[in-house]
Amino acid sequence: MDDLPAEFARIARHFRPLSGPGSLDLTDDAAVLAIPPNRELAIAADAMVAGVHFLPDDPPDLIARKLLRTNLSDIAAMGAEPFGYLLTVSVPAATPDAWFAAFAAGLAADQAEFGVHLLGGDTTSTPGPITLSLTILGTVLPGAAIRRSGASAGDGIWVSGTIGDGALGLLAARGELADPTGFLTDRYRLPQPRLQLGRRLAGIATTGMDVSDGLVQDLGHICRASGVAAEIDAAAVPLSAPARAAGMLERCLTGGDDYELLLAIAPAREAALLREAAASGIPVTRIGRFLRGAPRVTVRAADGTEMPLPRGGWSHFAQ
Amino acid sequence: MDDLPAEFARIARHFRPLSGPGSLDLTDDAAVLAIPPNRELAIAADAMVAGVHFLPDDPPDLIARKLLRTNLSDIAAMGAEPFGYLLTVSVPAATPDAWFAAFAAGLAADQAEFGVHLLGGDTTSTPGPITLSLTILGTVLPGAAIRRSGASAGDGIWVSGTIGDGALGLLAARGELADPTGFLTDRYRLPQPRLQLGRRLAGIATTGMDVSDGLVQDLGHICRASGVAAEIDAAAVPLSAPARAAGMLERCLTGGDDYELLLAIAPAREAALLREAAASGIPVTRIGRFLRGAPRVTVRAADGTEMPLPRGGWSHFAQ
Repeated sequence: MDDLPAEFARIARHFRPLSGPGSLDLTDDAAVLAIPPNRELAIAADAMVAGVHFLPDDPPDLIARKLLRTNLSDIAAMGAEPFGYLLTVSVPAATPDAWFAAFAAGLAADQAEFGVHLLGGDTTSTPGPITLSLTILGTVLPGAAIRRSGASAGDGIWVSGTIGDGALGLLAARGELADPTGFLTDRYRLPQPRLQLGRRLAGIATTGMDVSDGLVQDLGHICRASGVAAEIDAAAVPLSAPARAAGMLERCLTGGDDYELLLAIAPAREAALLREAAASGIPVTRIGRFLRGAPRVTVRAADGTEMPLPRGGWSHFAQ
Repeated sequence: MDDLPAEFARIARHFRPLSGPGSLDLTDDAAVLAIPPNRELAIAADAMVAGVHFLPDDPPDLIARKLLRTNLSDIAAMGAEPFGYLLTVSVPAATPDAWFAAFAAGLAADQAEFGVHLLGGDTTSTPGPITLSLTILGTVLPGAAIRRSGASAGDGIWVSGTIGDGALGLLAARGELADPTGFLTDRYRLPQPRLQLGRRLAGIATTGMDVSDGLVQDLGHICRASGVAAEIDAAAVPLSAPARAAGMLERCLTGGDDYELLLAIAPAREAALLREAAASGIPVTRIGRFLRGAPRVTVRAADGTEMPLPRGGWSHFAQ
């Protein structure tokens, strides 16, 4: 029938090329797929809203890639391997076809980079801002998922990469911070999910999560889930050169959008961690330790005094 | 830590009680669960936007239940068994706690009715209308999923329940149609996913989908997927007494929100269909037949002439 409604034609044009095994070409009521024997399903969902999680005039391909990557970061934090995703897209009725083309091109680029494909979803109109939701699927060996609840007093606190670039990148993208090289803005717009590292950490990290709501707040989640206290040495927190130049340490420690891994590593596993980090090409840094005590995060300044920090961040459940 | 941000406390209060096996208490980066051996995963996602898919002042519990049920309807249409879901909720920052309490109560009621539980998700704020996305998970025997692509010339076209109540219920909810008993409004606000029937139809229905975008448009999807034409006898389409009284046949045939099953049944399988429909307590009605020919839906009036119908509806991919 050539009087296919425009919305369906748009799906066929922009989204069907992104679909893969199990998607049934996006033409059925649901995707149907087999999970490999001896693997468990790891699944998470995150939403992003224009004006809240991205800037309304951000390039659509970067919006798409950030949406996919923030979800991939959750899969990385579980030590799982991603394979597919479902996507719901609510956009103003007047959104031009070129927006969808660019959005899909961003997804296509990251599908190729991360080995995932589109399984299904929904497009709707909205009288409000662009609102996106993505559900990411991966698999993990039974019992191998890296949980938040396993940290013990004596474990070291480790992070991958550098902390704070995303939060400073948001300031830069808003024109509130100089970013001559564009490094910080890139880090805000295009997170790097640490899949290569995460999948190597089963049996090495006793606990892990990704840093999305700010280092201090997210470390607090581990403390609550594990029943331990945590102490960070502020001077040990790895900052990129642009973040160091910005001189906004507190913002780096409490801002969000890092998408680095935050890990609990027993001393006996440090060598294994460093070996796997080297093999994955992602640096890791020890920034503190877990301690006996009520769940609490203490940040020590270079002189040993406690830095008072506000808390904040976004909410999410099992993100 | 007792300075847990309010958003996390809200999740703990309203959403954690809805969580179940695999959710890891909604405190981890992803849910992790085993799919039973010899079952495939069926998975679909749908979004709903205030002012588009529901009325902004609809009761929150009914919004929640409609969101869950429209997704369950997709699982029913695949002949699968639902077990869990992920949910993303974007709401204005000023949304009162009572809204979340009522929303969660609606989910709890339908979780009990349909045997599903919350696996994970995300809550965010939005400067726009309430926007919800739900990803439903179910399982199905390998190869048993009811697809859209299996209809053959000679198969009968069947529907469950009655058609058009949802579209008329929207008019009634808007005050544009009298609905003295509230039947139509209820049908709009609280779809009945045909899970009991759907799961019995593997091996009986050659093709199936749920009617969400309007009978004629959705039948067109089957025609395209199966490479057949379809002819409906308008007088055979089952209408409820209130829908019949409203005298808006065209609206019933093309409106959305039915969430009934639309099936292709070979003549040799009709007896089996009727037996399973009786066992499930859901009536089914033969409304036409598939024919050889290019994908096209013809609706015949009682006098045999073709009814000209506009097409329309919402878009969705693999909803």
